[in-house]
Amino acid sequence: MNSASIDQINSKVVTFGEVMMRLATPRNSRFPQTDLLQLTFGGGEANVAISLAYLGIEASHVTCFPDNLIGKAATQYLRRHWVNTSQIRYGGEEMGIYFLEQGAVHRSSTIVYDRSHSAFALADASIYDWEQILKGKDWFHWTGITPALSRMAAKSCLEAVKAANKFGITVSADLALRKGLWKNSEEASVILRELVNYSNVIIAGTRELDLLLDDTKGSLDEKVQKVQKLYPSVTVIADKDRKSRNASINTIKGMLWNGKRKITAKGLEVTHVVDRVGTGDAFAAGLIFGLLTMEKQEEALDFATAACALKHTIEGDANMVFEEEVMRLASGDTSGRIIR
Amino acid sequence: MNSASIDQINSKVVTFGEVMMRLATPRNSRFPQTDLLQLTFGGGEANVAISLAYLGIEASHVTCFPDNLIGKAATQYLRRHWVNTSQIRYGGEEMGIYFLEQGAVHRSSTIVYDRSHSAFALADASIYDWEQILKGKDWFHWTGITPALSRMAAKSCLEAVKAANKFGITVSADLALRKGLWKNSEEASVILRELVNYSNVIIAGTRELDLLLDDTKGSLDEKVQKVQKLYPSVTVIADKDRKSRNASINTIKGMLWNGKRKITAKGLEVTHVVDRVGTGDAFAAGLIFGLLTMEKQEEALDFATAACALKHTIEGDANMVFEEEVMRLASGDTSGRIIR
Amino acid sequence: MNSASIDQINSKVVTFGEVMMRLATPRNSRFPQTDLLQLTFGGGEANVAISLAYLGIEASHVTCFPDNLIGKAATQYLRRHWVNTSQIRYGGEEMGIYFLEQGAVHRSSTIVYDRSHSAFALADASIYDWEQILKGKDWFHWTGITPALSRMAAKSCLEAVKAANKFGITVSADLALRKGLWKNSEEASVILRELVNYSNVIIAGTRELDLLLDDTKGSLDEKVQKVQKLYPSVTVIADKDRKSRNASINTIKGMLWNGKRKITAKGLEVTHVVDRVGTGDAFAAGLIFGLLTMEKQEEALDFATAACALKHTIEGDANMVFEEEVMRLASGDTSGRIIR
Amino acid sequence: MNSASIDQINSKVVTFGEVMMRLATPRNSRFPQTDLLQLTFGGGEANVAISLAYLGIEASHVTCFPDNLIGKAATQYLRRHWVNTSQIRYGGEEMGIYFLEQGAVHRSSTIVYDRSHSAFALADASIYDWEQILKGKDWFHWTGITPALSRMAAKSCLEAVKAANKFGITVSADLALRKGLWKNSEEASVILRELVNYSNVIIAGTRELDLLLDDTKGSLDEKVQKVQKLYPSVTVIADKDRKSRNASINTIKGMLWNGKRKITAKGLEVTHVVDRVGTGDAFAAGLIFGLLTMEKQEEALDFATAACALKHTIEGDANMVFEEEVMRLASGDTSGRIIR
Amino acid sequence: MNSASIDQINSKVVTFGEVMMRLATPRNSRFPQTDLLQLTFGGGEANVAISLAYLGIEASHVTCFPDNLIGKAATQYLRRHWVNTSQIRYGGEEMGIYFLEQGAVHRSSTIVYDRSHSAFALADASIYDWEQILKGKDWFHWTGITPALSRMAAKSCLEAVKAANKFGITVSADLALRKGLWKNSEEASVILRELVNYSNVIIAGTRELDLLLDDTKGSLDEKVQKVQKLYPSVTVIADKDRKSRNASINTIKGMLWNGKRKITAKGLEVTHVVDRVGTGDAFAAGLIFGLLTMEKQEEALDFATAACALKHTIEGDANMVFEEEVMRLASGDTSGRIIR
Amino acid sequence: MNSASIDQINSKVVTFGEVMMRLATPRNSRFPQTDLLQLTFGGGEANVAISLAYLGIEASHVTCFPDNLIGKAATQYLRRHWVNTSQIRYGGEEMGIYFLEQGAVHRSSTIVYDRSHSAFALADASIYDWEQILKGKDWFHWTGITPALSRMAAKSCLEAVKAANKFGITVSADLALRKGLWKNSEEASVILRELVNYSNVIIAGTRELDLLLDDTKGSLDEKVQKVQKLYPSVTVIADKDRKSRNASINTIKGMLWNGKRKITAKGLEVTHVVDRVGTGDAFAAGLIFGLLTMEKQEEALDFATAACALKHTIEGDANMVFEEEVMRLASGDTSGRIIR
Repeated sequence: MNSASIDQINSKVVTFGEVMMRLATPRNSRFPQTDLLQLTFGGGEANVAISLAYLGIEASHVTCFPDNLIGKAATQYLRRHWVNTSQIRYGGEEMGIYFLEQGAVHRSSTIVYDRSHSAFALADASIYDWEQILKGKDWFHWTGITPALSRMAAKSCLEAVKAANKFGITVSADLALRKGLWKNSEEASVILRELVNYSNVIIAGTRELDLLLDDTKGSLDEKVQKVQKLYPSVTVIADKDRKSRNASINTIKGMLWNGKRKITAKGLEVTHVVDRVGTGDAFAAGLIFGLLTMEKQEEALDFATAACALKHTIEGDANMVFEEEVMRLASGDTSGRIIR
Repeated sequence: MNSASIDQINSKVVTFGEVMMRLATPRNSRFPQTDLLQLTFGGGEANVAISLAYLGIEASHVTCFPDNLIGKAATQYLRRHWVNTSQIRYGGEEMGIYFLEQGAVHRSSTIVYDRSHSAFALADASIYDWEQILKGKDWFHWTGITPALSRMAAKSCLEAVKAANKFGITVSADLALRKGLWKNSEEASVILRELVNYSNVIIAGTRELDLLLDDTKGSLDEKVQKVQKLYPSVTVIADKDRKSRNASINTIKGMLWNGKRKITAKGLEVTHVVDRVGTGDAFAAGLIFGLLTMEKQEEALDFATAACALKHTIEGDANMVFEEEVMRLASGDTSGRIIR
Repeated sequence: MNSASIDQINSKVVTFGEVMMRLATPRNSRFPQTDLLQLTFGGGEANVAISLAYLGIEASHVTCFPDNLIGKAATQYLRRHWVNTSQIRYGGEEMGIYFLEQGAVHRSSTIVYDRSHSAFALADASIYDWEQILKGKDWFHWTGITPALSRMAAKSCLEAVKAANKFGITVSADLALRKGLWKNSEEASVILRELVNYSNVIIAGTRELDLLLDDTKGSLDEKVQKVQKLYPSVTVIADKDRKSRNASINTIKGMLWNGKRKITAKGLEVTHVVDRVGTGDAFAAGLIFGLLTMEKQEEALDFATAACALKHTIEGDANMVFEEEVMRLASGDTSGRIIR
Repeated sequence: MNSASIDQINSKVVTFGEVMMRLATPRNSRFPQTDLLQLTFGGGEANVAISLAYLGIEASHVTCFPDNLIGKAATQYLRRHWVNTSQIRYGGEEMGIYFLEQGAVHRSSTIVYDRSHSAFALADASIYDWEQILKGKDWFHWTGITPALSRMAAKSCLEAVKAANKFGITVSADLALRKGLWKNSEEASVILRELVNYSNVIIAGTRELDLLLDDTKGSLDEKVQKVQKLYPSVTVIADKDRKSRNASINTIKGMLWNGKRKITAKGLEVTHVVDRVGTGDAFAAGLIFGLLTMEKQEEALDFATAACALKHTIEGDANMVFEEEVMRLASGDTSGRIIR
Repeated sequence: MNSASIDQINSKVVTFGEVMMRLATPRNSRFPQTDLLQLTFGGGEANVAISLAYLGIEASHVTCFPDNLIGKAATQYLRRHWVNTSQIRYGGEEMGIYFLEQGAVHRSSTIVYDRSHSAFALADASIYDWEQILKGKDWFHWTGITPALSRMAAKSCLEAVKAANKFGITVSADLALRKGLWKNSEEASVILRELVNYSNVIIAGTRELDLLLDDTKGSLDEKVQKVQKLYPSVTVIADKDRKSRNASINTIKGMLWNGKRKITAKGLEVTHVVDRVGTGDAFAAGLIFGLLTMEKQEEALDFATAACALKHTIEGDANMVFEEEVMRLASGDTSGRIIR
Repeated sequence: MNSASIDQINSKVVTFGEVMMRLATPRNSRFPQTDLLQLTFGGGEANVAISLAYLGIEASHVTCFPDNLIGKAATQYLRRHWVNTSQIRYGGEEMGIYFLEQGAVHRSSTIVYDRSHSAFALADASIYDWEQILKGKDWFHWTGITPALSRMAAKSCLEAVKAANKFGITVSADLALRKGLWKNSEEASVILRELVNYSNVIIAGTRELDLLLDDTKGSLDEKVQKVQKLYPSVTVIADKDRKSRNASINTIKGMLWNGKRKITAKGLEVTHVVDRVGTGDAFAAGLIFGLLTMEKQEEALDFATAACALKHTIEGDANMVFEEEVMRLASGDTSGRIIR
């Protein structure tokens, strides 16, 4: 990858997961109203890679695409947005797709998936050589979506975190429970517990934490404490609190538990949401960036919250903002004045 | 009509009125700024038909189009949006047109009409065979715009409501006074009074109620009572209260008088108006749907208010939302969270 | 269906087959060059239905769509283009999709399919009640793509042609061999032979005829004779001869064998191809229209050839042209002068 | 008017006629396929004004627009394209409109008019003060469309040519017979004969010349001679010969009779027609420009033919090409090589 | 200029300054996300001219464009928006350009300039004949950007204000300090002081006033008083107070000191900013219009504030609003209700 | 670079030169007709890099961009199209720009440049470390445009070819004389002669060869022989013959002299030119690819000619076609049939 044109930071991050074609109706229109769809690509982990790349991190994404025009276009999308694509595998027949209608005010956004037989979900675990991929890297990031896609994807993910642990690479995970993808919650519980044992930083809310615990009683803070006791590898647990006044006005506030204390970020009200998708991934990328480059976790959390807030103003899945833009907001300048 | 793909409800509604070509500047641009216009079609009654069709009602629209490419395209628009178009007549030369510049914040939307010699306004009343059209139907809807367009249109409307009464079909009317269309208020008064005598549900505000009364003194509630006394066929009078903070922020609240008491819906603040046109028609359609399918008028009014609020987020004249979407909002979920 | 606005002809045609979402790059651009895709829908059989509907025939299409926003949008596309959609079934998860890059001059158009697990391919044959569907209809049309999609689709197709034969409905088939869809040519041969036994009009070239014959020696004319002998139900065999100077200049000429003699249409050179897809379907629709409404097969073949030539100037899969437009060209007026 | 940025020529030309809003489907699409229309403005005489303005002539257009957003936008369109709009009148209600579907190859372009009650057609002749308008001008141009629109428009046109004659201004006319606009050919004949008596340069084909003659026997050349004898003011008669291989390939060749001899221009084959509308107006403008600025009528005719050919490559009604571009083609350079 | 179609006011205003090509990403997209740019033109002084022209003032803009397609297109843009362009000069090679990414909520708009070698900046002062340009005019307007562009531009500006003083024409200036354009603040100070000596109405905030003063201590009110004492030609000083809650919500309030007292306008909250650029120019134009046509300065200031607020809803640099629209808002109607 | 998704070939090519922002009017429109410009990037050498990358070669481009949003977007464009951008330098202020109006038929394309003060032209030669850049590479390509841009650019180019010679890397050059860029032909002659002394494959026509010769008499073949004698490093001279029937129909035929004999490719007629720009670069890339990977120069020349022909069908500067597509045409299949 070349990120010569953006301030370079020496950390190297690897992300792993499915990338889908995103087909969105143009702003405000519904499916039966349009004859044009906006074509981009996205996925929970690739979104993190793009965000990090814009922040100056050397970010590689690992995935599998069909070896045709569409798979090539997906790789080209990641290259365009600064991601290192040298570890992408090609094979299989079809690309995961998701259709998106953006909501507004009281009208919800609607997503329809077409991903059940994607090249990624069907790919054999053997196509990824994790030792070769992760050698010399600093951070590995996965999400709870990947192991939910197929047995094979779960296996690949497990091999990846094991290899990362072997090399002493920090592992982060956004557990992001998607009930529609798992057979049942037991399956989710068994697989995620094993993966979390190899992870160091996890993003999880009540629903995700419950999957890691046999005893799910107690407050969020108590759950966090239990998870930190049960999974000693996990040094940081984070989450973001979202208040949705409606689809166009959301308030975001990051929270982080580091085993010693709970840190809460300044809340940010996003008064005119442009695109709600991928805001969690922007938070994750901001957190990874903060933990990699900042001295205090408070700073990292404010950075993650600001990154998340800014993502709401960017169309598409990924957070295409620069470090200085996030820093300006994280430092408290909410004015949005023109930069000349 | 085929509405097999949406939850079917057995009621059959017929609407009658002019459909205009709507030529709107793209979002935020003014006429001298654009070389592209957005082409859709709309009219106060056809908008109700489309809304009802999306809600699962079998809705037929009756109108007259010129028998050329443009008239065909108008029919195709209605077909695309689930309306039964089998009773549309073809003849005459020109299509009614309206030009629209969408406003924002303190800038008003501007509408310029080009409808004075439309095929609909000039059509002879004899082209509609109302007994054949209304046989087996459950509801007939007209608005105060139709009789204002021409003597012939008023005559056709009167024949329609008489036929509806003959078959025992419920008749609703959105009186919607458009001063620019009537010669004077006396003409409006005479014609509307006769039509209201054949109607059961009317949507009207102070200005419209005054046309039905010789004695226009008193409060809105008192006017409603007088109208209900003078026009015994009218069992329900409804209206919506709109507060416009500016063109982009409106608050909507439905009201209904059923002869016994006044019902007031929960107000909904639309914080980011996308399209203000047709919101009254969305209210009317929501009310018809509610009265046809719900047990309590309170529910119907909340449904109508929610439908109206959602319309503000849809581009175009008609409210392309599904029953479950309206119901979610009517039930108090204003969060607009993503539906996956 | 309502086709009141186009000259109505009393024939009723039913078509059956998969409809795919068509996602095309805007004119002249390749996939990695675009962020917008043009959204329409199409399929070999539905294209025939749309063409026939524009020609004034009451055309119903039978298929199966997923019961979600995308399936609804597909139905709405067919409704918009005059097709009767009352016999469409809803179920399954995913819509067939094809991606299209339009070629030009020496650059070929490229199509990538994503249809392997479509709702149509996986649909159970029992969802179609062919006797109810075909009762009162005049013509049934299928293509060789449908039985190639899945065992279930082949079974449904066979049940349809049997029901059509029972009611004495004319059956036409465009055998359209797609090698990529069949397991092997034996499977194609076995299944197509059985279906052709119930068919009356077939469109087929050398490759398709060979599948119907054990002895594939001889010229095209000889093969046609053999097929007509072996399959006595088949009274008409037709094909079109295409000369491709390049992707932008094609010459088209229809041929028809009626058991007695071979008829050859006037050739038409399309000097500026706009869209090559669906031109065979336009030929099939033109032929069906001609055989249904014209006295002489010569006229029908000229009509089919002209329809095919006109389709090359229409974007999208289906031939949206009116009878008078085809007739003008079929009658020899190639001038394309402005119609005011 | 300011045409400082283009090479200024001192001649001043006035044109008179209706300007319509032109609403065209985007390239290749038909009306039921599009939700966007391309908005420009045009009319046979204003097209001549724009063409002349681009060629460096000070061109004023006289017309009447409704005094609303739409009329303003029409004026702004003419201003944008260098026309002097200071003599435009405002009044009336509606703008003439025409809808256009561009054809291709064997598919004809289709035009639907909506102009019957336009502000221009209904405008009183008294609103134009022709002496004030024409004072100090060099040339006045009208077409056969204007007197066909209404009695008032015919009256205005007659007053204009009389005033022009009074000032000794050259009068040109493109007789352009539009049968749909005239009540019958007698009406056309009576009115056009009177107007031609005040005209000096006319563009007319067989159909138009016949209207000027009682005895319509003979060849085109003979008709021209008769007209020149009967109407002594007419010193130049011109026409263009068009061969339409199809809607995308046309060949153009100008012809001119000056009373002494017939001049024929070099023919030009337009192999890829972009927009067929307004090509006659481009020929007229080229002829006026040539007669105003060139020594030989041969040059003027070649210039007119080249201007006409170039118009086929410009979208919209008017010929937006510069003198050097026309001259390059008129001089025989058909190569279309890049100009850097 | 022709502004016959808008209510004409007899005042004639001349503005002088660079016009840049504005290339903006489509709404909400960032540079690496788009393959299309929106092309308009703008500059601090030309924006004032366009605003005034829409308000009915005869406004001429003086500038210099390269004599090529791009310079012509710039002139055409001004003509389209009613500006008199007869005093534009042509010469030089390149057009100033600015690239714009519109911000939203907490994301700032970003502007990148490419104007260092523009035809305007390099133009010799001798190309403008100010006596000829200003003769018979009523008002001359310049901004602090022009003298900052180059020595030549500063010289031209000085010659202009001297000529204006000679003719007794009112001179207004929006001092608009752009630090990036001046070598240092001393240069700015020297040049601006000289120019202000010839000016009557200035728009300036603290930073600009400081440049005019040796002693910059004290409050804003005190600075204003000092400036009014030091520069006796300056009879009016105005400014607008902007509160940016974020890029999408701004509150605007005009202030004016007339030597006797300070006037403060009603504040207006713009809740959904569409385009932040050019809002200061809209304020300036509103102020000039008010001072030219209204009796009281209070009215003028409310008008300027309302004009400024409305500009936030218009895409592009200039305020394309009509007098009645501004007046409605200035009079306190903030509802933005539909105008039919 | 990652070209894992396209068939990888081990050769590594480096190109060097300015990349400009290309701002093109949408298809068929002229500058004053459009409010949207198509944004891509291109330059004679980068176009070669993109073409080679699509053909599977690892291609690096060396250039200098301003370190802002625009420079980043340019890098992202090259990354998107598979080019290795790790050797791009950042500095300076402005990006070279060219404006393009696409011609059609007899209307020429028009290009306006804005590149005189680009970051590339002003960049110091010291920013490129050619030994580090070229180490391990196989081919270096430059064009005659680069040394014409500035003394510094010429110096950088000379250092590059010297370094290439030092490493034994093949050097190719497309001499491409642009008279507008050179001070005079002597300057061009002196500088190009020195550079050609370090080059092995040159593409040049009569005009370019003349610059390399003192004695410019004789036929093209004789000139080629003289150049090959005078510049012994030059082993291959190639050119393409273009016949322009008009802007939409061109015929292309490659020619190559290898010191022993002249080879002539099969001519290809491009009947519908989509984009004429960059076709020479496509020829150069095809030639480099052919010489690197094919056994016979005849094959290489046919490949180059086919690549050139295909480029005429691709919008934008660079030839985004795959090896198999070029090969199909080079092998004689001109049919452009659909690839499924």
